[in-house]
This record gives sequence, structure tokens and C-alpha cells, in this order.
Amino acid sequence: MPPPPAPSPDAAIRFLTAEAAAEPPGPSFSICTLVNDRAQYAAMVESFTAGGFGPEVAEFIALDTTGNLRCDAFQGIPRLLAAASRRYVVLCHQDVRLLEDGAAVLLARLAELDRLDPHWALAGNAGGTAAGGLAIRISDPHGEGQRRGALPARAVSLDENFIVLRRAAPVGLSADMAGFHLYGADLCLQARLAGRSAWVIDFHLRHLSPGRRDVAFDRAQVEFERKYAQLFAGVRRIRTTCTELRLRRSWIGQWLRRRRLARLQG
Amino acid sequence: MPPPPAPSPDAAIRFLTAEAAAEPPGPSFSICTLVNDRAQYAAMVESFTAGGFGPEVAEFIALDTTGNLRCDAFQGIPRLLAAASRRYVVLCHQDVRLLEDGAAVLLARLAELDRLDPHWALAGNAGGTAAGGLAIRISDPHGEGQRRGALPARAVSLDENFIVLRRAAPVGLSADMAGFHLYGADLCLQARLAGRSAWVIDFHLRHLSPGRRDVAFDRAQVEFERKYAQLFAGVRRIRTTCTELRLRRSWIGQWLRRRRLARLQG
Repeated sequence: MPPPPAPSPDAAIRFLTAEAAAEPPGPSFSICTLVNDRAQYAAMVESFTAGGFGPEVAEFIALDTTGNLRCDAFQGIPRLLAAASRRYVVLCHQDVRLLEDGAAVLLARLAELDRLDPHWALAGNAGGTAAGGLAIRISDPHGEGQRRGALPARAVSLDENFIVLRRAAPVGLSADMAGFHLYGADLCLQARLAGRSAWVIDFHLRHLSPGRRDVAFDRAQVEFERKYAQLFAGVRRIRTTCTELRLRRSWIGQWLRRRRLARLQG
Repeated sequence: MPPPPAPSPDAAIRFLTAEAAAEPPGPSFSICTLVNDRAQYAAMVESFTAGGFGPEVAEFIALDTTGNLRCDAFQGIPRLLAAASRRYVVLCHQDVRLLEDGAAVLLARLAELDRLDPHWALAGNAGGTAAGGLAIRISDPHGEGQRRGALPARAVSLDENFIVLRRAAPVGLSADMAGFHLYGADLCLQARLAGRSAWVIDFHLRHLSPGRRDVAFDRAQVEFERKYAQLFAGVRRIRTTCTELRLRRSWIGQWLRRRRLARLQG
């Protein structure tokens, strides 16, 4: 047998090492915000820096949705995520203000999620649970120091005022949705479909807005429900070059298939 | 009203500009490979560099699955993707060899997808179509110069020998699957769930292996079918802080809802 050809000396080849899998050095957080009021945003940044998110801990990335990059949340957030390079990406509203909990508390809460589920992808301060209830830790116009549910609580949706994404478990937004609503639920469902989890954590902050439900929200809800209902009902068979995947096998079909497989393995 | 607080001079704030959205300078491709035979891999790199994927066009990133990072495809590929920084990521098998088509042809085929669908996420040389057929452009032990379907063809699955991912439309693998099989179908389904598309393109190369269907493949198929069947049947209602999303509304429920919305908007 001839010796294997040497790789071209011109080729830039890099074999991954255990070190390459380590976290990047530098700040832990990219704090990303869609901005349409720069004074509000400046106050938000001020409250974060006062809460321990100084330059050694965080970078702040903003997208002015009223400027020449005018866009909605489903267009703007992917741009923010693409620009964010740190271990955790915080997506947060310009009218969020930190209270007593700062960077050290947030890092501790996220480390707790590492222990609970190595596949966790998202964390927030308010959201729905699988059982149909809510888990909440917030002060907002509905009340001071709200606390609901045993935290951390696994979530099926997260309120958009404050969402942490773990870059090692990347989750993206739907490219076929639009507007400024329900992207928290979309992120959580995308995570769930990829076998990743979302959590409400005990990180107390103030949101200056009570949340808004208007016609645009109702329209977003109809679109969300329509999109996923069609997908979940419509994907039945997937042809591949090697097989046909059937996602709607009858119970008998599933049983026969597992019995055949058990025999092959036995 | 007091003047808005000035942002802390210590805070590192970056407002995204139109330039920030531009492609990174440098090579267009990160070519990523799971390697268990370094001679095979060296021959693959050699054929790519001969085909125009020199250092000004491509970086090569490898993960030795037999070394101290021992892992399967569902664990290894996310590590490769995390290390890849270029505009396009090529996931390809170590036993792929380029033929007459090189970097210029691949760039032209991908530019064609940009025109067909701004949301395209994945491209390969073989896969299943929504109609249940196959689209193929390959030479392998099953035949020389195979060509099937009108290319480019929209795909519901892609063969793992060669898959291009567009980093501007990031798609991840399921965290809850394992092994070396069906990650092409998983990527395509994850893309579809996020409103993104996959395509078989006319990029002709040689794959030295005919593909393998063994008990591990059958097991992977059962797991794939089980995972998605459960998800699609199981996600019915999602509670959020503002509403309850219902993905299984009856037709009458959908109709009533749309009528109410039309009135609100009217």
C-alpha cells in the first residue's frame, strides 16, 4: 500500500483539542437590547454596571430599531445574537432595571442550571410551566417583589423582558415569524424541539412596563398557533437516502418495529 | 423631568451598524470533519485544496473521534460548529473526494440558493424531497455520475457525506439524540421547524463509501421517530405570561378566533 499523501502544506488544518472546548476568556455576558429610546437604554446600562456588570464582566450590544437598521424583534435579535460572543447572552428590554441581585447572583443561578440539566439553553425571570401555571420573580406595575412557583422552575415559555441564552447550547428564532411579540415562547419551543430546556430562575429585577396585549399581539398569537399546528400535523414521513422515517406509525407498527429491532440486537 | 443619566463611562456599549451585519473578511469556508482515520482525512484535505479550497478560501477543522475527545456525531458536530467561524460551514466525511467541481462551483451554487430563498440554511449533494422521492448528485459505489431530480431541489433530509450550513441561518442538532446516523435528517427537520430550508445542489463529488445500514442505524431510526412523534403529538398548549397558545384548536375554534381578530383590526 502506498503511504498516505501528506496534507498540502498550504492547508490550514486545526485538530480540536480539549482546550478548544473551554470557555472563551474575558467577560461572561453579552447584554443585548433592541432600543427605541436611548435615554431608557442609558438608564438600563447604568443599572447593570452598578449591579456588577462592569466591562470585565459584560459587553453591551444594542440595535436601534428606529435607525437605518429598522427592524422587528424576529429580524433584530438574530443580528444581536450573531454579534454576541460571550458565554451567556442576555436579551433584555430597555426598561429593565436591576435591583439587589447583580452579576454574582446571576452567575450563581446559571451555575445551578448547569448542575440541574447540562442541556439547558434558556433562563428568564417569568414564564409558563408545563403544567399550565406560571413561575415568576419580578417587580413590575402589577406588584413589588412578586414570587410565584418553586424556583428554578422548568418553563415552556419565557417573558421577553429578560432572557439569558447559553451560547454553548445555541437556539435560534423562527425565520418565518414577525413582530415584537411571542419570541420568548418561540425560543422556548425551538429549544424543546432540539432537546434543550428553559427555566425561570430566582433573579429579581424591575420591569417598568406591565406588558402589552393589543391587536398586534393577537395577530402574533394566531400566526404562532397556525405555524406550529401545521408543522406538527403536517410532518408525517421523511424520505432519506437510506430509509423512510415515519413519525405517525400506528401503535401496532411501533410495536412490530421494536420487536424486530430487539431480535436483531438479541 | 431630570435629564437621562449618562451611561457609565466604564460600560462597553456597541450599537450595531449596517457594516456590522456584513460578512466576516477572510476565507468563505470552515470545512469540518469527524476523523477516525488520519490518512483518509489527509487525502480528503488534499483533494479539497487541489479543488480551490486553499488557505485564502477555506480553513479545515477536524475532531479525532478516537482520541481524548472521543465522541459521537451528535456530540462532536456541535463542537466543530462552535469552532467554525466562516460564512459557510461544510460538514463532510473523511472519505469524500472532490472531482471536477471545486470552490468556484460551490460558491456559485450557494449564491443561487441566496436568490431562491433568503432563509435557506442547508445544502447537500443527496437527500429526500417533500414528495417522497430522492434528489442526488454523486459518484459512489452505487454508480458513477449519478444525477436524480431537477437541481437545486428543496429537501426534507440530506445525506451526511456532504452538508453545507450557512452560519447566517444557524441550525443546531438535537441535544437528545446520539450516534453517527440520521443527523442530516435531524438538521433538516430542525431547520424546517425554524422556518428555514434545505436543498440538494448540483455539486458533484465522490463518496468512497456506499453508506451503511446496520442495527445501529435501525436503532437510530426508532429513536428519531419516537422523539419527534412524541413532540408533535404532545405539544398542545403553551402557557405564557400573557396568554395561552393552543396548537390544537378545532377548525371552528380557529375560525372563531380569526373572525374576532378581523373585527378587531377592521
